[in-house]
Amino acid sequence: MAKSRFEYVREFESHDVLLPQCYIVVRIDGKKFHEFSKYYEFAKPNDDRALKLMNAAAKNVVLQYRNDVILAYGESDEYSFILKSDTSLFNRRRDKISSLFVSLFTSNYVTLWPKFFVGVELHPKHLPFFDSRCVQYPNLKAIKDYLSWRFVDTHINNLYNTAFWKLIQVCGMNPREAENRLSGTYSSGKQEILFKDCGINYNNEPEMYKKGSLITRKGEILHIDVIKMIDDLFVGF
Amino acid sequence: MAKSRFEYVREFESHDVLLPQCYIVVRIDGKKFHEFSKYYEFAKPNDDRALKLMNAAAKNVVLQYRNDVILAYGESDEYSFILKSDTSLFNRRRDKISSLFVSLFTSNYVTLWPKFFVGVELHPKHLPFFDSRCVQYPNLKAIKDYLSWRFVDTHINNLYNTAFWKLIQVCGMNPREAENRLSGTYSSGKQEILFKDCGINYNNEPEMYKKGSLITRKGEILHIDVIKMIDDLFVGF
Amino acid sequence: MAKSRFEYVREFESHDVLLPQCYIVVRIDGKKFHEFSKYYEFAKPNDDRALKLMNAAAKNVVLQYRNDVILAYGESDEYSFILKSDTSLFNRRRDKISSLFVSLFTSNYVTLWPKFFVGVELHPKHLPFFDSRCVQYPNLKAIKDYLSWRFVDTHINNLYNTAFWKLIQVCGMNPREAENRLSGTYSSGKQEILFKDCGINYNNEPEMYKKGSLITRKGEILHIDVIKMIDDLFVGF
Amino acid sequence: MAKSRFEYVREFESHDVLLPQCYIVVRIDGKKFHEFSKYYEFAKPNDDRALKLMNAAAKNVVLQYRNDVILAYGESDEYSFILKSDTSLFNRRRDKISSLFVSLFTSNYVTLWPKFFVGVELHPKHLPFFDSRCVQYPNLKAIKDYLSWRFVDTHINNLYNTAFWKLIQVCGMNPREAENRLSGTYSSGKQEILFKDCGINYNNEPEMYKKGSLITRKGEILHIDVIKMIDDLFVGF
Repeated sequence: MAKSRFEYVREFESHDVLLPQCYIVVRIDGKKFHEFSKYYEFAKPNDDRALKLMNAAAKNVVLQYRNDVILAYGESDEYSFILKSDTSLFNRRRDKISSLFVSLFTSNYVTLWPKFFVGVELHPKHLPFFDSRCVQYPNLKAIKDYLSWRFVDTHINNLYNTAFWKLIQVCGMNPREAENRLSGTYSSGKQEILFKDCGINYNNEPEMYKKGSLITRKGEILHIDVIKMIDDLFVGF
Repeated sequence: MAKSRFEYVREFESHDVLLPQCYIVVRIDGKKFHEFSKYYEFAKPNDDRALKLMNAAAKNVVLQYRNDVILAYGESDEYSFILKSDTSLFNRRRDKISSLFVSLFTSNYVTLWPKFFVGVELHPKHLPFFDSRCVQYPNLKAIKDYLSWRFVDTHINNLYNTAFWKLIQVCGMNPREAENRLSGTYSSGKQEILFKDCGINYNNEPEMYKKGSLITRKGEILHIDVIKMIDDLFVGF
Repeated sequence: MAKSRFEYVREFESHDVLLPQCYIVVRIDGKKFHEFSKYYEFAKPNDDRALKLMNAAAKNVVLQYRNDVILAYGESDEYSFILKSDTSLFNRRRDKISSLFVSLFTSNYVTLWPKFFVGVELHPKHLPFFDSRCVQYPNLKAIKDYLSWRFVDTHINNLYNTAFWKLIQVCGMNPREAENRLSGTYSSGKQEILFKDCGINYNNEPEMYKKGSLITRKGEILHIDVIKMIDDLFVGF
Repeated sequence: MAKSRFEYVREFESHDVLLPQCYIVVRIDGKKFHEFSKYYEFAKPNDDRALKLMNAAAKNVVLQYRNDVILAYGESDEYSFILKSDTSLFNRRRDKISSLFVSLFTSNYVTLWPKFFVGVELHPKHLPFFDSRCVQYPNLKAIKDYLSWRFVDTHINNLYNTAFWKLIQVCGMNPREAENRLSGTYSSGKQEILFKDCGINYNNEPEMYKKGSLITRKGEILHIDVIKMIDDLFVGF
């Protein structure tokens, strides 16, 4: 094709290439999902429809790039896709990987919405969208610690949110009271409060809430103790 | 919130910040849209529904970030959003800007699909998605040349595609014959072939095809000679 | 030449290219010069030999790259080299520009040392060295402000250091007393203290101390009011 | 200290931080050493004074940063410093590490010059200087391969240079003839030519030429078969 005299503007582009032999995490995260979840009246502390929609969208991303993905892990409005250290996907270009994953995820999220939020229509001014980033991990220990970090975070967040909302919903506290009641407590303390104040045994909460969701390369969705299984999860990678 | 011993993995993240006082282009581009357009049987050389859907999705992105956007310009399956040089959107973080724009665009594209492709359902295995990149331009001349580059490209591509497809559709050539007929011709030559071989006056083709679509901060969609108007488009920026 | 099976390790290299059409500053800065200046007993607050050596070394760097440099400006143990916005020196590779400038400067500094520090030998365990960085400025206003920043900094630092050392040398204070005396004062306050306490008129201090040193592309070394001259300094660039 | 209204220009600076847990190579390389070696009439194919000066300068760099360096390896006008994967030197800032190493090396090179080039004065217009870069390697295998790469390169270069110069010096060929004689030959072929044409047994050439120089953290300079010793060299790192 002919080239114009304006072609030189391409020289301003930069292409950041991720370091070879590093594991790559693509982590996507809901933008203003606090607002979004309010608008669509998500159940609190966890909305089954929302979590299952996240899982379904992520699963399709995993399946589309199954040759390059080791596993994906998600909780709440975020998902991490862990890519093989030797992947040559999009020539390891940071912007390509980051943008194509988040775009494909978003496309799936919106497409699958009606299947999970039956009868709830997306309003054009209140659409879901996500940011995305690539992070590099140079060895197996570090990538396992990354996944463990997200798993522990799921636990911490879910325990807090469960206690916070149950104090409101079951014990009739207002948000400030619930916050005060939980402030300064450890993990065990929150479980105790849940049990004593609200009569709820945290251990009986659904596994998906407590453990997040892990998607295998084959597309299986598991709710498992990631830390206990951490070595098994990376066998062969 | 409590922090786990895995928290250190955050240190592997990097945050590329775009240079202050540079205009920022976010350009998104359809992934495998050749395949995608075949699957959904886009009209050739231009599909009105597809172009208008691109415009509608881009318009919503512009309106959502109207305080930071100067204008947007699109053709075919790509769109460029030009941000003010002094924008502090997402603290000018490259990955945030790039990913949130493409995710919001994708969300709109899928949501608006049924409005433009009436009766055509998106198939979960054939979903639209886009890559995205940020490019920095340090001065007004360079950003004007960027926009001019995309405009000239629209002209070059559309003239070629129009001639190519009309030779097939009107003159009954096969793709290879059409390619050969056009090879080595200049712009004027292609217009002549179109006129002599197929009886089509390129000047009468729709403005949207010939000139692409420009979206103002107010959300107006224009099909104008960008190069003629280039100075006016950036007055005040 | 033959290539070995280890050649692949080159793929780990990255080459950061500076944005076209931006002015480039290479700023070098003495490493641990506090210690270095103590070891070689630099005169305080300013050592003529040391400043003139910095200037001579910087001048040679300017002359070697005179086609790419607009000017250089230095004070104390730092020097800034300002490159033309359209320079293609080392293909604008950040690491090449940064490292070659600092290496050439260092080479000159050590070579010229005996000329300025007559009779003072460099000790192998106390050698001078410098760090270096490239900074990009997208327009004339910003690069002028950069230079103005360094100039104002020279003034602020030199006024403080002069007052601090004169209080010690002339008025017999100890360092803590001198520090306390100056704490919280403005520029005019420090000049007044200098005059009243030590009988020194700051205006009569040498121009090189008060204004730093500016080197033109022709290698002239000037001690001028940079802010007053700022527009003239960049005429034609 | 007071801050001026120009202070904002600092926001244009960027600080690239090297990935945690990666080995870091700082490789410095002589700038225009072909010219430089001609001007100072280096012996060909190898100049003992020049090689020993490189080693002495590198040794001082190693000793200064012995807590962070694993080893250094050099040949001809280049040197690679291999840093521990967990070093926090200069907070792993790429520009700091790259520039300070090359500046310290240059400072040593110039200071030590008279000791090795006795009676040869450095001419101010023909000073030695070096570029520098940082490269990251995420695992032990890759960093070993890096070192092996440089070692094999030393062999390939030295064998070629030795054969090339001996054909000229011993057999009286001109450069073009020597080049033609060697073109297309393998390693063994070059050794045979050296032996048959010039009566030189390559195996008897000095170890420093054939194997380059490796500097341990303690400052020992060795000329060893790096590939044979590769595992031992990294024990404990």
